[in-house]
Amino acid sequence: MNFDALRQQIKKQTDEGLLALIESMPDHAPRLKEAMQHALLVGGKRMRPLLAHLIGNALDIPKQDQQVISMAIECIHAYSLVHDDLPAMDDDALRRGQPTCHVKFDEATAILAGDALQTLAFSILTDEPLSEQSASHRAKLVSILAAASGYCGMCGGQAIDLAATGHSIDVDALTRLHQLKTGALLSACAQMVTQVADISESDRQHFITFSRIIGLAFQVQDDILDVEGDAQMLGKPQGSDQALGKNTFPALLGMDQAKQVLSDLHDEALQALASLPYNTEYLTAFTDLMVNRKH
Amino acid sequence: MNFDALRQQIKKQTDEGLLALIESMPDHAPRLKEAMQHALLVGGKRMRPLLAHLIGNALDIPKQDQQVISMAIECIHAYSLVHDDLPAMDDDALRRGQPTCHVKFDEATAILAGDALQTLAFSILTDEPLSEQSASHRAKLVSILAAASGYCGMCGGQAIDLAATGHSIDVDALTRLHQLKTGALLSACAQMVTQVADISESDRQHFITFSRIIGLAFQVQDDILDVEGDAQMLGKPQGSDQALGKNTFPALLGMDQAKQVLSDLHDEALQALASLPYNTEYLTAFTDLMVNRKH
Repeated sequence: MNFDALRQQIKKQTDEGLLALIESMPDHAPRLKEAMQHALLVGGKRMRPLLAHLIGNALDIPKQDQQVISMAIECIHAYSLVHDDLPAMDDDALRRGQPTCHVKFDEATAILAGDALQTLAFSILTDEPLSEQSASHRAKLVSILAAASGYCGMCGGQAIDLAATGHSIDVDALTRLHQLKTGALLSACAQMVTQVADISESDRQHFITFSRIIGLAFQVQDDILDVEGDAQMLGKPQGSDQALGKNTFPALLGMDQAKQVLSDLHDEALQALASLPYNTEYLTAFTDLMVNRKH
Repeated sequence: MNFDALRQQIKKQTDEGLLALIESMPDHAPRLKEAMQHALLVGGKRMRPLLAHLIGNALDIPKQDQQVISMAIECIHAYSLVHDDLPAMDDDALRRGQPTCHVKFDEATAILAGDALQTLAFSILTDEPLSEQSASHRAKLVSILAAASGYCGMCGGQAIDLAATGHSIDVDALTRLHQLKTGALLSACAQMVTQVADISESDRQHFITFSRIIGLAFQVQDDILDVEGDAQMLGKPQGSDQALGKNTFPALLGMDQAKQVLSDLHDEALQALASLPYNTEYLTAFTDLMVNRKH
């Protein structure tokens, strides 16, 4: 199968799995349920599930386990977007070309939908069927995802981002910010999948390093697209980082230097893959996609 | 030890455990850390830790396990209060006589503090030291707490509450609302502690039923205190339910009937305890406290 077809298949599987999960929930709070579905299922590139499945395929992890890990990660990602879009945070009205959760519903429902999606991520890891080999790792999977999501990961990164908005920080601080805000969750994909794999610690660390680099590259490309991208392809207004006074790689380094950083990260990611004794052909294609994406 | 002394001791242990946990976190996002500490440590009756410890003591569960379960539950409770107090939700400026999180800090920080406290609850269950007998139950503890907190528990109850505010619902609907919004988390105390105990399924169910009844009684008394209570003792303005157009037991049934419901719940709770072959003396005192409390 070529990479694009595989990517579409993984996206479809993720969407179907998440929809089935929402549909299996009782109807006692229909507006909240609808808001959770909106947040989870309107668009989304499913980069994190793609990364989890590609590493899982390389390591021959049962598909069901890859799916459970992917759905949990995607619930955390979706919750973070709903809360980041709130008026008190980035105040975004559009996401993936659709109204954001608090615009389509209301702020209270959006706060609760984010809260309940975070909880759902952990329920998925403890309750959804896993292969026998992976089921004994449930607590460790929760531990990894919680560490990547909370104060020492994504939430901490978002807090640093808020504190830095409107002030100028240096490129090291910006890198650390994104390592927490974006990198931690991508790194958690690799940590969770390799947790249930029979793999050497050194190879495990290469997968995790690769995912961290990809997380940073993803963010640098995000910053570049915010300046040079097409609003229609992005599904959100172009130039919104600047309007918000956000620190970005192009703003700190200039566009040429930002593109050089991206190119260096691309090389580093490929180097991390090259040292792995597994078939990483699709992960190479994934790396190229992350760096060259237009939206 | 008399009940009041035990209660103070458990409150102190809980406060100290939570403070140590926050202080052990790195300082990369100091404002977020401070907001999490404020949310966790300003006042609080620690009713849920008290319930968890009392059941744990009755069943001879190691103290350390009781503490871990209590801290996790309290992080979920604290996060829910921070988010419930937000302007888009109940818009409360005071909680336990102190400024609420978004008033003392700002809305964005309060949203993030709530998010990170929720994550912390699950990290506690997977990462904090447990006795050998309990460590194998970590995933199940996460499963119970997530089920009680999310769409099928507390978050769902809060969504039903929001939808019902300003409309009149019947007493059955109000009871269901509170069973989710308050009862689920109190019931989770009993579910988690009995999960790690060597106990018959029937006795386990009695503890869970007891905790559900206590959750509802707690809420009925809350509604009564909102009408008859003393603002200074409550640490918040009296009459705030009515001002918000909230459905309450006194508003639906009249005050006399609401007090009768509370008295009936008191009897039911004591009956559930009476059928248990354990020393439930302190749990009886706890029941009396819940029903007779003035704040």
